[in-house]
Parts: sequence; C-alpha cells; structure tokens
Amino acid sequence: MDTLWSRRFSLASDRMRSSAIRELLKLTERSEVISFAGGLPAPEAFPVAPFREAAYRVLAEHGPQALQYGPTEGYLRLREMIARHTRRYHIVVEPDNILITTGSQQALDLIGKVFLDPGDVILAERPTYLGALQAWSAAAPAYVSLKVDDDGMDTRMLENALRAGPKFIYVLPNFQNPTGATLSLERRKLLAERADHYGIPIVEDDPYGQLRYDGHHLPSLVALDSGARGDKIYSGNVIYVSSFSKILAPGLRLGWIVAPKEVIGKLTTAKQGADLHTSSFIQMISHEVARAGFLDKHVRFIRALYRTRRDAMLAAMERHFPEGIHWTRPAGGLFVWVTLPPHVDAAELLPAALEQGVAFVPGASFYADLPMKNTLRLNFSNPECKRIEQGIRRLGLALKKTLEPVGAHKGHRSP
Amino acid sequence: MDTLWSRRFSLASDRMRSSAIRELLKLTERSEVISFAGGLPAPEAFPVAPFREAAYRVLAEHGPQALQYGPTEGYLRLREMIARHTRRYHIVVEPDNILITTGSQQALDLIGKVFLDPGDVILAERPTYLGALQAWSAAAPAYVSLKVDDDGMDTRMLENALRAGPKFIYVLPNFQNPTGATLSLERRKLLAERADHYGIPIVEDDPYGQLRYDGHHLPSLVALDSGARGDKIYSGNVIYVSSFSKILAPGLRLGWIVAPKEVIGKLTTAKQGADLHTSSFIQMISHEVARAGFLDKHVRFIRALYRTRRDAMLAAMERHFPEGIHWTRPAGGLFVWVTLPPHVDAAELLPAALEQGVAFVPGASFYADLPMKNTLRLNFSNPECKRIEQGIRRLGLALKKTLEPVGAHKGHRSP
Repeated sequence: MDTLWSRRFSLASDRMRSSAIRELLKLTERSEVISFAGGLPAPEAFPVAPFREAAYRVLAEHGPQALQYGPTEGYLRLREMIARHTRRYHIVVEPDNILITTGSQQALDLIGKVFLDPGDVILAERPTYLGALQAWSAAAPAYVSLKVDDDGMDTRMLENALRAGPKFIYVLPNFQNPTGATLSLERRKLLAERADHYGIPIVEDDPYGQLRYDGHHLPSLVALDSGARGDKIYSGNVIYVSSFSKILAPGLRLGWIVAPKEVIGKLTTAKQGADLHTSSFIQMISHEVARAGFLDKHVRFIRALYRTRRDAMLAAMERHFPEGIHWTRPAGGLFVWVTLPPHVDAAELLPAALEQGVAFVPGASFYADLPMKNTLRLNFSNPECKRIEQGIRRLGLALKKTLEPVGAHKGHRSP
Repeated sequence: MDTLWSRRFSLASDRMRSSAIRELLKLTERSEVISFAGGLPAPEAFPVAPFREAAYRVLAEHGPQALQYGPTEGYLRLREMIARHTRRYHIVVEPDNILITTGSQQALDLIGKVFLDPGDVILAERPTYLGALQAWSAAAPAYVSLKVDDDGMDTRMLENALRAGPKFIYVLPNFQNPTGATLSLERRKLLAERADHYGIPIVEDDPYGQLRYDGHHLPSLVALDSGARGDKIYSGNVIYVSSFSKILAPGLRLGWIVAPKEVIGKLTTAKQGADLHTSSFIQMISHEVARAGFLDKHVRFIRALYRTRRDAMLAAMERHFPEGIHWTRPAGGLFVWVTLPPHVDAAELLPAALEQGVAFVPGASFYADLPMKNTLRLNFSNPECKRIEQGIRRLGLALKKTLEPVGAHKGHRSP
C-alpha cells in the first residue's frame, strides 16, 4: 500500500524482510499448538538460580560499574574468559581479538556493515540461517550458494564459487541451522585452505558447536586456519561468531566475535554507531555465572537433555511419518530438516498441521536463492519428550491427509 | 595503512568514524585526570538496591521468561508503561506505537536504516549529537544545518533549509547535547507546523527532557504535532526517541521510540535483523524498578543533584575562567558549552588541560558541517562538586596559559 510513510522509507528498507518464524511464533503462542517452529532453548533448563545469585553479587559488589556506560569492546573479564576458552582449541588470541555483541545477530549485522557494499556477492550454504539473510538484506548482496548434504556444504563446486569473487564465505559448520548437518573434517580443511588461497574471508557462525550429542568434536575453521599458519596471535582469514544464547540463555542477548585485531577494531567502530556497547550488567552477571567451571557443567546437562529430545523426535518420526518423507539425523544442535515429496509445498501443509495442533517452519525462508519448497524445519530443543511424541503424531496425520488425497483431489479439479 | 583487511572492508565502513569521546575516555580513566569529557551520569545516584531487589523478584517469579527469547517490539508491560507515560503529555498512543531499543543509540541506527539512502539530506542542528553522526555515517548523508543559539535551533533560515528536501529533521529540543540549549516554544510550534507543511518527518531526540532544573516543561514536538492534529491514535509527523540511560542507568542499554504504527512496524523489521530484540531480563527488571511511581521519585532526586552540580560548575567558571570566554547557562541536561576566542583551537588547548589534570571534549567533533574549532563541551553530571571546583580551576589555569602567551609565542615564531 502506498502511504505517506511508505514513500518516505529508504530503498534499503524495502528489501528488509520480516522473519516468517517470528510472525509464526506469535500465532502459535496464542493457541494450544505444539510448536516445532522456533529455535528456542528449553526454558526449564535455564540456570535461573545461578543468575539470581550472580545478579545479587554483581550489584552488591560492583553496582555502579554494572549500571554505568562501559567500553564498546566489552567487559574485559568476559573477553578474557572467552579468550581462555578459545585458546583451549589451540587458537592463540588475546582479549583484543574479541568483541562482545548484543547477541550473535548483532555480530552478523556488524559484519554486513563492515564488509558489504551494494552488489557484493556472498558465498553461502543452501539452505542457510534466515537471520543472516535478514541482517544483510539492506545491502542487497547477490548470493552464490553451495547445497548442503549430510556432510555439510558440498565443496565439489567450491572453486567455481570462489572464482565468482565473493566478499566472504558464510558457513555454519556444526549442526547447521536449518538442516542440522555438520561439515566433515575433510571439507573443513579444503574450505579453510581454498579460502585462504583466494584471499576470501570466512565468516564461521557457530552457535551450536558445544551441543554435540554423538561422535567427536571437529576442529573449527578458525582452529584449522590458525593451526596451518602458526601465528603468535591469530591474524588469519576467519571471523568466528558465537553466542551465549544456546549454552546459557537467549534472553541475555549476548554473543561474541573472534577475529584478527584489525577486524575487531573496525567492527568496534561499527558497534559504537549501532548501540554504543552491550549492557554492562548483562555482561557482568553472565561472566559471574559462567566462570569457575559452571558453564562446562551446564553444557553437559543441556547436552544430555537435548540428546533425549532429539532421539524422541527421530523415533516418533519413524513411527508416525508416512513413506516418501526424508529427514536428517543431526549429531547435535536444535533442528531436524525434513524433505517432502517433490510435489508437496510445505507452506501448503502448514494450515493442515495447524488444524491438527502442530507448527513448523516451511523451508523456503531459509534459501538465499533456488528455494526448495518441499522442505521444513523441526525444532526439538524446546518441547518436552511427551509433547514431541504428540506433536509428531499430529504432524504425521497432517502429512497423511495432505499426501494421500493429492491424487483424488487433483482428479476432482481436472475432470 | 593499506593491509589485506583494509582492502576488504566496505566503502561504507571507511566513512564510519570512531567517537573522539570514547577514545578520550579511555585516556582519562587511566590517570588522575578530572574528566568533564564524558556524558556519564553520576554513578552514586544509580538505584542499585532497587535493581538488586527487582532482579531477585523477576528471576524468582518469571525466571524462564526473563531468560528466553522475546518479541522484537519489546516486553509488553514495559511498552504499556511507556504508553501511559507518553499519554500524560496528551499524545494518545498504544503499545503498538512503541518500539523498545538497545539504548537510544540503536534507535538512531534503525532510523538511519529505515530512512536513509546514499546521498540523502538530513537537516540537523549545528552543532549536534555526535552519536547520531556516527549512526548515520555509513549512509553518507549530506547535511544542511541550522546553527544553535540560546533558544535552540535557529529557525530563521528554516524555510530555505526545508526546500533542500531533507529526508528528515534531526533535533534535540531539550538541553541539547552538546550546547545545553533548549528550543523555545515559539520555534517548536514553527518547526512542527512547517515540517508538516512540507511533509518532512522530524526525529525528536529527547534523552534529557526529564532533567530540567529551572523554568517550566515545554511541550515536545510530538505533543505539539499531536495536539494540532487531534488524532485518535497518534499518526503524525514526528518520530520521538528517548532513553532510560539518564533517568535510570546507561549500563542497561534501554531506549524507546514513539511513532505512528506504520513507522514502528518498519523499524521493528529493521531491529529483527540488527539484534532480534532487546534483552528480556533488562526490560523486565527495568519495568520492575520503574513502575509504581519509583521513576518519578528518582527523577526528582537526580534533578536536585545535577542542579547543584550545574550551579557549582557555572559558579566556578565565573571565578576561574579568564576574560573573553563565553559559555551557556543550560536549564537542564548534562552539559555546558564553551566558546573560546576565535583564534583558539580547543583541540590545541586539550594537551595543556591534560597536563593540568583536567579533560573536556573539543567541539569540532559535534559538527556535521562548518565546524567551529574554538568550542568545547563540559559535563557536570558525573563529577562531584568538589571535583568540579578543582577541575574548573585547573581548566582556568590551562586557559590562561594558552591565551596569554599567544602573542609572545607568535612573536617568537615569526621574527
């Protein structure tokens, strides 16, 4: 609709899109729907009591500092803690290699500001994280994408894609959102090496890396790049992004970036203009909760909880889904990715599912280009096992109704 | 320096500038310098105990909600509270007219994203808020500016400036940062009416409106616009921005925007891409602290404290500054603006001041165009009265040293 205001908005803003998921979440919150749509952690697993104690202690001991303006780079003790955590994986960094962000969503926004000019190309996975597409939409980048299979980004066409001259490569190597796929070690090595060869930076988005339920941890791209280089202080080709959202709590809005100091300096200037700094209080209480070994213990607890839920979902799918449906078996993270028969549009399945009392996200939103409409994403971290069983049974019913009468229905419409 | 990374950064990022103030603050924190440089509230006035109690209560009663993802628009009860507060001033708004932001700095960033295309013109005050220049620098706007005098933005050239077709007008009507000037009622009426006549939105930035020490509250531009229109729900021409930073605590990073619903919708989409939402925990504890009349009481307390500090600074300036220096007598806010003799560059005075153990911000940073280098900004909210007296005495010494030997010094250099 052309209104007075719509004529005033910027061209960049016309390209921004609202998240289908956040709109969908509003809908599902209002009803008795079992929702597999969000990417929400299990709220019953939040460390509420430790946060209560930490808030009390921080305000009792450092109240004025916690409520005052702080440095744009972030609270030094939190950056020191993240630097120590990073060094565990043999990436030698100092606090100056770390920028604290207002959730990892802001990290993506700042990366867009610092790297993207209109018309730039991004090399991404197909499908990829919706929030990254949103963060960068204003800059109107072109995308070159490589499809994701069970071993993550398919690197067979990597050389071709790199020759398109992307500004950076965006990849979620661990339990990718939305597919749950994990990039194999072989592909990681190839990607890190080739990106460096062509001088094209990698943006490694790793919110789920700690949430592995099977098998062994694989080295991150930043670790491989650092190892190959033998830097004294990391000065390589990877910008690593992570978050406390999945290992502590998303309501904090607390994430971080690990990168060469020159990149951190540039991102810090961008952050000054974006929100000055991330809440001092949030940084200080999160540091207080996470320190002294609590975070490691808590991550083990979440892992066990989510493993059970993933197993419950996969088992329920085996029981309740009709033939002709395929899905991933993620080794970690929050999501299972479902592929329907080619002629079924998941967006058209959604009303039938909502009628049964279950919600999911149609897959098309997760594509920068070449969307596959017969896909959908299911979250298993938020609902309890009983609700997972119930929800998957409902989704199975909706699938059967949608799949089976297709022939009959079509027959009626084309006499 | 041209490095591998510098060649990768975007053109937009080359236009971003780091805040002279934040760099300066780092310097002053490390020494025994009395700093008038920041815009920091008095930390001893932060309501630490109420925050401690609120944090405890919110986590005890609503822990999982406080730590979970929340809606991009913000916590509903906080938006309701702000809507009630706004209606006190006869602007009829609903929660849908309010967007919660990660400090008012983010409000400015989002406004830039939603309104500015490259090459757009902004009509601003001369001088104006440095953070706004930073937030919008990536879009490379052109500026048309109207100088600020004792009655705020000088509107005599307003018609001409509006005919330049600015995308919006940016104005800080109350105790402006950096000058401390307040826009007169007559000029407010003219500005609101003419902006509406030309169909050019006003961005009204009002972080200090509650901090008035003399005289009576003047209606905001949004109130004047709303009054002239008689809307059922506000749908006018003003986007009003404010913050909890100066009335509760800046370490929260909590601000808000009041605007017509269509504008809020667009800004919400931009915020999704920027940081998803502002911390649920921060919003809930701030609501818990502010509600039930506490905020009004606390604002009265801060007003009394800062009034004393302003008076101490103005009195000390009378005593210690040499002739030929002029300064503003702000009726509120945090800042006094000083004009030196035309030949004195405040940036060159700064080393002499630091040597005496006192810091300020040279005025040139606050100009979008036509900088006046013989200006500087002093903050009186942060230091205690004794430190103000001491610091102004030191600055007076530095001024005398810089002003008096000018003739002699010049004589030596040009024989």
